[in-house]
Amino acid sequence: MPALTLATLQAHLGGHILGDPARILRGAASLERAGPEQLSFVVGRKFLTQARASAAGALLVAEDLAAELEGDRLVLANPHAGFARALTLLHPPSLPAPGIHPAAVVSPQARIGAEVHIGPCAVVEAGAVIGRGCILGAHSYVGPEVQLGEDCLLHPRSTVLHGCRLGHRVILHPGCVIGGDGFGLAWEGDHWLKVPQVGRVILGDDVEVGANATIDRGALDDTVLEEGVKIDNLVQVAHNCHIGRQTAIAGCAGIAGSVKIGAHCQIAGAAMISGHLEIGDRVTISGGSLVAKDIPAAGVYTSVMPLMPYADWRRNAAHLRHLDDLARRIKALEKQPQSKE
Amino acid sequence: MPALTLATLQAHLGGHILGDPARILRGAASLERAGPEQLSFVVGRKFLTQARASAAGALLVAEDLAAELEGDRLVLANPHAGFARALTLLHPPSLPAPGIHPAAVVSPQARIGAEVHIGPCAVVEAGAVIGRGCILGAHSYVGPEVQLGEDCLLHPRSTVLHGCRLGHRVILHPGCVIGGDGFGLAWEGDHWLKVPQVGRVILGDDVEVGANATIDRGALDDTVLEEGVKIDNLVQVAHNCHIGRQTAIAGCAGIAGSVKIGAHCQIAGAAMISGHLEIGDRVTISGGSLVAKDIPAAGVYTSVMPLMPYADWRRNAAHLRHLDDLARRIKALEKQPQSKE
Amino acid sequence: MPALTLATLQAHLGGHILGDPARILRGAASLERAGPEQLSFVVGRKFLTQARASAAGALLVAEDLAAELEGDRLVLANPHAGFARALTLLHPPSLPAPGIHPAAVVSPQARIGAEVHIGPCAVVEAGAVIGRGCILGAHSYVGPEVQLGEDCLLHPRSTVLHGCRLGHRVILHPGCVIGGDGFGLAWEGDHWLKVPQVGRVILGDDVEVGANATIDRGALDDTVLEEGVKIDNLVQVAHNCHIGRQTAIAGCAGIAGSVKIGAHCQIAGAAMISGHLEIGDRVTISGGSLVAKDIPAAGVYTSVMPLMPYADWRRNAAHLRHLDDLARRIKALEKQPQSKE
Repeated sequence: MPALTLATLQAHLGGHILGDPARILRGAASLERAGPEQLSFVVGRKFLTQARASAAGALLVAEDLAAELEGDRLVLANPHAGFARALTLLHPPSLPAPGIHPAAVVSPQARIGAEVHIGPCAVVEAGAVIGRGCILGAHSYVGPEVQLGEDCLLHPRSTVLHGCRLGHRVILHPGCVIGGDGFGLAWEGDHWLKVPQVGRVILGDDVEVGANATIDRGALDDTVLEEGVKIDNLVQVAHNCHIGRQTAIAGCAGIAGSVKIGAHCQIAGAAMISGHLEIGDRVTISGGSLVAKDIPAAGVYTSVMPLMPYADWRRNAAHLRHLDDLARRIKALEKQPQSKE
Repeated sequence: MPALTLATLQAHLGGHILGDPARILRGAASLERAGPEQLSFVVGRKFLTQARASAAGALLVAEDLAAELEGDRLVLANPHAGFARALTLLHPPSLPAPGIHPAAVVSPQARIGAEVHIGPCAVVEAGAVIGRGCILGAHSYVGPEVQLGEDCLLHPRSTVLHGCRLGHRVILHPGCVIGGDGFGLAWEGDHWLKVPQVGRVILGDDVEVGANATIDRGALDDTVLEEGVKIDNLVQVAHNCHIGRQTAIAGCAGIAGSVKIGAHCQIAGAAMISGHLEIGDRVTISGGSLVAKDIPAAGVYTSVMPLMPYADWRRNAAHLRHLDDLARRIKALEKQPQSKE
Repeated sequence: MPALTLATLQAHLGGHILGDPARILRGAASLERAGPEQLSFVVGRKFLTQARASAAGALLVAEDLAAELEGDRLVLANPHAGFARALTLLHPPSLPAPGIHPAAVVSPQARIGAEVHIGPCAVVEAGAVIGRGCILGAHSYVGPEVQLGEDCLLHPRSTVLHGCRLGHRVILHPGCVIGGDGFGLAWEGDHWLKVPQVGRVILGDDVEVGANATIDRGALDDTVLEEGVKIDNLVQVAHNCHIGRQTAIAGCAGIAGSVKIGAHCQIAGAAMISGHLEIGDRVTISGGSLVAKDIPAAGVYTSVMPLMPYADWRRNAAHLRHLDDLARRIKALEKQPQSKE
C-alpha cells in the first residue's frame, strides 16, 4: 500500500488543507475503523459526531463542516467524489499485465489492440475487435463480431454475445450477460414460436454492468445504454430498451421490453418497469415499486405497501379486497340527511 | 444477408400477395426503421398510422387490416408468427460447424451424437449423452449422466448439472443453471442441516431458459418443465415445481418450491408464487404480483400497489396501517340512528 | 445405490425401531412415490393419511405420531433432520477424486491443500490458499489472495474474487459471485464517479450460497456472513451487509447496502430490505415484502397487497390513491352532530 502525504493528496484532488500537510496516509477506511495513518471522509452533518470520535489520520470534508472539526483536514467542494479519487491512489487496483494467457482461446480472426490482457480460459471469437488496454478476465467470453472500445474491464466470467458494441472504459462484472436473446414469442395456435432476435446491445462509454445482470439484445433494433449508465447486480434489461445517460439502476430491478428511460434517472432496488413505457429525465423510482404507466415528469414515485407485523397486516389487508365497498358506504353516509338540532 | 422475393416468402409462409411478388427483401426491421428492401409487419389497428408512414419494402399483415394499407403486402392469418419465420429466412443464424474444439474437455465416457458442435472450454462429463445436432457453446457445462435430446442449443456458459434430462430443441441461454440444489434445510436445535437434493430437472421438448435463470433439481422427486415452457432471464424455479406445457414466465419472476402451474399460463415479470401452491391452466399473473393462495380458475390476477408521486404515497399509505380501524368507524357510523326530518 | 437395514440407519441416527430392524432400504423417496425398498418420513399430523397410504418400506417419524402408523418405523426426535442424514447414507453424493485436472489452470503461487480436487477449466490465481479436502468444480474461479477453509465445495462455475475469505465447509452453487464490486457511486456535477470497493467478503463456516446469487465485497470494511448463513438462488447481498449466524434468505431476495441482519432470521423469497437498516434476531420477513425501516423486535412482518382477480383489483386499487381523502371524509362524518331520537 503506497504512503502519501496530505499535501500529495491535495495536489491530486485540489481543495485546501487545515492542519498538517505532511500527515502521512497509507490507506482509507470508514470513520469507525480508520486509524491514524488512514484517510476517511465526512458527508453530511449527521456524521459529525462520528467524525469527531474517529481516529482517522485525516478527513476529507466540505467547507461548511470543516470548521466544526479538528485534526488534519482536506477541504473539498465534493468530499465524496474526492474520496473516490483518493481511494484509487491509496488502494491502487492490481491490474494484470498485458499479454494473452496460454490457456486463453483467441480466434486468429479477432483483432486485439495493444496492451490488452486476456486471462486463462477466456474465449475471443472470430471478428471480435478488442480496443487498446482492455482487460479480459478469466472465463470471459467475447462473441463473434463484438467490438470493445479502449480500456474496457471485463471481470472474470463476463459474457458479451455476437455483434454487441461496447464503448470505452466499460466495466462488466462477473456473470453478466450482454446480448442474450430477448423474450420474443409469437403464439401460433397451441404453442409458442420463437421470434429470432436480430438486434444488438450498444453500451456507451463508462457504462458499468453488475454481477449476473442481463442486458438482452434488441428484437429488430438495438438495446441501447447511453454513456455513463450504471447497472447493479441481478438487474434485467429486456430487449429494445433505451436508457439515457448517467441513469443508475440498483440491484434486482427489472426493466421490461421496449422501455425508454430518460437521462439522470435513479431506479432503486427491486423496482420493476412494465413494457413499452416512457420514463422522462430525472425520475426517481423508489425501491420495490412497480411502474405500469408512463412517467413524463421528474420527481419521486412509489408503489409499495408499508410493512406491518403480520397480525396487523392480516387484519388490515382483508379490507383491501373491499375498498370499493368501503368507499361506496362512505358516500352513502354522506348522502344521509344531516340531523338538525 | 440473403435476398428473397416476396413470392419466395409466400412459398414458405403461405397467405396471398397484394402488390408486387417480385419485390426483393434483404432483411427485416421495425416499422420506423425499415427501408425499401426490408420486411416489416403490422399486428393491430393501433399500428396502422405507423405502417402507412413506414418505408418498409413489404409488410406482413392480417386480412382485416390489409385493405387499409398500400404497397406490397403478404396477407397472413398470423402475421406475428409469419414474421418470426421470415426472420429465420432473412437473418439466418450463423451456427457453428459440427466438431469438437481442441480446447473443449469431453470425457471419453460421454456419448456424443453426430453433427454435434462443442465449443472452446466447454466441459462434458462422464456418462453424458449428447443428441444429434446439439450445439454446446464455449464454457458450457454438461455434468455427469446428463442427457440431451437432438438439436439442443446451449449458449456459451450455460450449465446443466448431473443427471438432468433435456428433450429435443431445448435452448439454454448464457449463465442459466439447470439442476442446482434446491434450498432444502432442516432445523436441528440451533443450526440448519442441509437436506441432500437427490431429484433431477426434466425439461421437455422446445423448452427455452433465459440468461442467468435457475431451475433447481427436485429434493426427492423431479422438477419438471413440460414441452414448450418458456422461461425468461433471471427467473428462479425452485425444487419440485411442475410447470405445464406452453406456459411462459417472464423476467425476474420467482416460483417457490413444489408449486404446480398448469398449461398455457402467463406469469408476468417479477411475479412471485409462494411454495406448495397449485395454479390452474390459462392463468395470467400480472407483473410484480405475489401469489399466496391456490388459483384454480383461469383468469387474470393482480396484487400490486398503484404507483404515486412519493408525497401522495406517503399521505395515502399511512392509512393502510389503519384500514381495519377505518372500516370499523364506517360500521359505527352506519349503526347510528338516522335523523328523521 | 447402497443397501442398508433399518438397524444400520438406527445406528447412525439414534431413536428406536418399531417393526422389523432387518428391513432393507435402497433409497429414499417422497411418501407418494416410495416403494417397499425406500425410506420416507412424516413431519406433521397433516401427512398421516398420506403416510398410511404410502408403500414406503420404512418411515422416519416422531414419537407423537408413531403410534398412529403401522409398518416399519424408526422413531426420532427430529425426523426431518434424520431424513437429511439418511439421504446422505442412501444417496451418497458422488464426489470427484482428489487431483488437479490437466485442463485446470492453477497458479504456481497458489497453495493447494491435501486431497483437493480441481476440475477442468477451473482457474486458481496467485496467492490463493485452498484448504484440505476442497472441491473446485469445472469453470470455478478462485481469485488472487482468496482463502478457502477445509472441505469447501465450489460447484462448477462458482466465482470468488480477489481477497475474499471462506470458512470451512462452505458450499457455493453454480454462477454465484462472491466479492463483486459494490454499487458505489459518487455524483460529480453531471456524471457518476465510481467509488473503488476495497473491502472483502467474509463467509463463515457452513455458509451456503445459491446459484447465481451475488455477494458484493465491502466498500471499505468487509461484507460478512456469519457461520451457517444460508442464501438461496438469485439473492443479492450488497456491500457492507452483516448477516448473523444461521439466518436463511430465500430465492430472489435483495439486501441493499450496509444492512445489518441478526441471527436466526428468515427472509422469505423476493423480500427486499432497503439500505442501512438494522434487523434484530429471529425476525421473519414474509415473501415479497419490502422492509424500509429498522425492525428491532422478533416477529413476522409483511407488506404485500393481497391478490385479486384483475377486475376487482382495478376497482379497489383506484381508491388507494385517495385513501387520505376517504379517511378525512370518515372524520367529517364522525363530527356531524348525531340525531337524537
